[in-house]
Amino acid sequence: MLRVFALCLAAFAAASLPGHAADAPSPPLTLSEQGSFFVGGRDVSSETLSTLPAYAPSGTVTVDQVYVHYQIPVSPVRTPLVLIHGCCLTGKTWETTPDGRMGWDEYFVRRGFPTYVIDQSWRGRSAGNPSAINAVKSGKAGADTLPPVFSAGREAAWAIFRFGPEYPKVFPGMQFPLEAQAEFWKQMVPDWSAALPVPNPTVPALSELAKRLKGAVLVSHSQSGIYPFQTAALDRGGIRAIVALEPAACPDPAKEDLAPYKDLPILVLFGDYVDQSPRWAPRLKLCRAFVAAANAAGGRAELILLPEIGFHGNSHMLMQDKNSLDIADWLTGWLDKRVPAKD
Amino acid sequence: MLRVFALCLAAFAAASLPGHAADAPSPPLTLSEQGSFFVGGRDVSSETLSTLPAYAPSGTVTVDQVYVHYQIPVSPVRTPLVLIHGCCLTGKTWETTPDGRMGWDEYFVRRGFPTYVIDQSWRGRSAGNPSAINAVKSGKAGADTLPPVFSAGREAAWAIFRFGPEYPKVFPGMQFPLEAQAEFWKQMVPDWSAALPVPNPTVPALSELAKRLKGAVLVSHSQSGIYPFQTAALDRGGIRAIVALEPAACPDPAKEDLAPYKDLPILVLFGDYVDQSPRWAPRLKLCRAFVAAANAAGGRAELILLPEIGFHGNSHMLMQDKNSLDIADWLTGWLDKRVPAKD
Repeated sequence: MLRVFALCLAAFAAASLPGHAADAPSPPLTLSEQGSFFVGGRDVSSETLSTLPAYAPSGTVTVDQVYVHYQIPVSPVRTPLVLIHGCCLTGKTWETTPDGRMGWDEYFVRRGFPTYVIDQSWRGRSAGNPSAINAVKSGKAGADTLPPVFSAGREAAWAIFRFGPEYPKVFPGMQFPLEAQAEFWKQMVPDWSAALPVPNPTVPALSELAKRLKGAVLVSHSQSGIYPFQTAALDRGGIRAIVALEPAACPDPAKEDLAPYKDLPILVLFGDYVDQSPRWAPRLKLCRAFVAAANAAGGRAELILLPEIGFHGNSHMLMQDKNSLDIADWLTGWLDKRVPAKD
Repeated sequence: MLRVFALCLAAFAAASLPGHAADAPSPPLTLSEQGSFFVGGRDVSSETLSTLPAYAPSGTVTVDQVYVHYQIPVSPVRTPLVLIHGCCLTGKTWETTPDGRMGWDEYFVRRGFPTYVIDQSWRGRSAGNPSAINAVKSGKAGADTLPPVFSAGREAAWAIFRFGPEYPKVFPGMQFPLEAQAEFWKQMVPDWSAALPVPNPTVPALSELAKRLKGAVLVSHSQSGIYPFQTAALDRGGIRAIVALEPAACPDPAKEDLAPYKDLPILVLFGDYVDQSPRWAPRLKLCRAFVAAANAAGGRAELILLPEIGFHGNSHMLMQDKNSLDIADWLTGWLDKRVPAKD
């Protein structure tokens, strides 16, 4: 029986890479393990958990923890990836694309990477705390103490995601599957990050996760772009590389100590149309300055624009764009060079 | 190659049922498909999406949708299960247990059921709307208009989950893994359901999902117990059975039309210690009355207490209790009898 299994695992591994065509069915996916758990979290006592008679206002809740969903391939030949979503989104970012294609979460498992998809602290399946709302509702605090929780409307989000210069204009050659945009807007959730301390509680939770995994690549997106850098500044333990996809911020070389990034493989990756975006062009410029300064301080950082390596038309949501799996293949190659698997 | 695959699939299927021991490693899990999507949802225009300069207050967001994560076994020999969590929780309910054992989501896939795990509307990865909060924060509405969002503190939740009569006393023979309670408390999230219309937007979304699946068993827990009944009352399309695990409510036979439940297999399942709980004893009584009345009206409903069939010590969180996979096996047998697979 064991020999049959070994034969089968080899057969599956050899055939487990799906074609990139949207309609091509993929071969079965075989996992050695899957599941979910939390990292981080702290207990909080509150007198305003509820304003409803059925639920007590007083009590203890746990907040700041980070939900982690993982999948381990049968042949984990590569370093674990931690996939960290951006503003107003959840771990859904990395799953099935809005137009129904395979997400990076599954694709990288099929390429031999254990994958860990998180929901940021106070987002998705990671609990927030409603106490500040109930304190105002019950008259114990003023309206100005309400947390600045926000949602991004699609009209404003359009330019932020660089689908076009302004809603609803589309950049020529756009790779985002805009025909499925209704499904994409459903991914967006309220964002509590402006109500949270700096660094975001996600940062120490990521450190706990990286150490628990005994080695991981932290892959951020957009709002979370600064988190892996902050995590490394807190503790380099367990961090084998940082991949910052379209980071909203890189560490400011004029203000930050760059020693935490010495000898650490870092990739900052941007899509297309960046220089046409008043929001993104300055961020790209700051990241360029960071990469230069980090390398001057002994770093191993690279900044790449997708058009420079032959990918054109990519939006801010490059992991959902129509060429998302081609980009994943390129990223696999980068990781194989910069983060070789340990024996 | 295809013959090798067929042989392997058969070998995996035969060996894919894990032992129930906590420490026994499971054989690999092979899926024909996995992914996620949304059902339901509606567009809402708002002038109070944000109070932050970086995000526009005006815009359109999509709310009320329901996040669905699915896994399809290579040999889907049984009817799809839709797993619907309860109050103050998310789809995490059905995943890895707090003490690290396999969740029902994976176990039922290994038993040949396609599984669909949802996050209720306005919970987890299913977006809510922060507009009412920002309307108050920006002075456009009074504090009394704030939504009654609540969290359940562990001290009160203890008795609701029937870990014991009161915090921190434990019922004798308790099956819940209380040694891992810190991990369980991290699963709990704020609950917006009291701010939502009746029926909850999850209900029409479940109807859309059942029809899309062309046949599904709706498996509810606790707060969501009434949802599948409301879904059937809305439209029987796609609903092959209802399994209500510890429902907070059954349809009231004195008030509700029971015609929607005619010929529909229904199982209402409760754990242990129910009669010792001032919260749950009356709910059990109402469900008994419903089952009797539904059967008198041509129904196929059953109500079972786990101790009656040999399972003792089960809490309200029976899908996470130490004997959770034994209960899943029993439930599989019930489903095989009442909901035979279609040819």
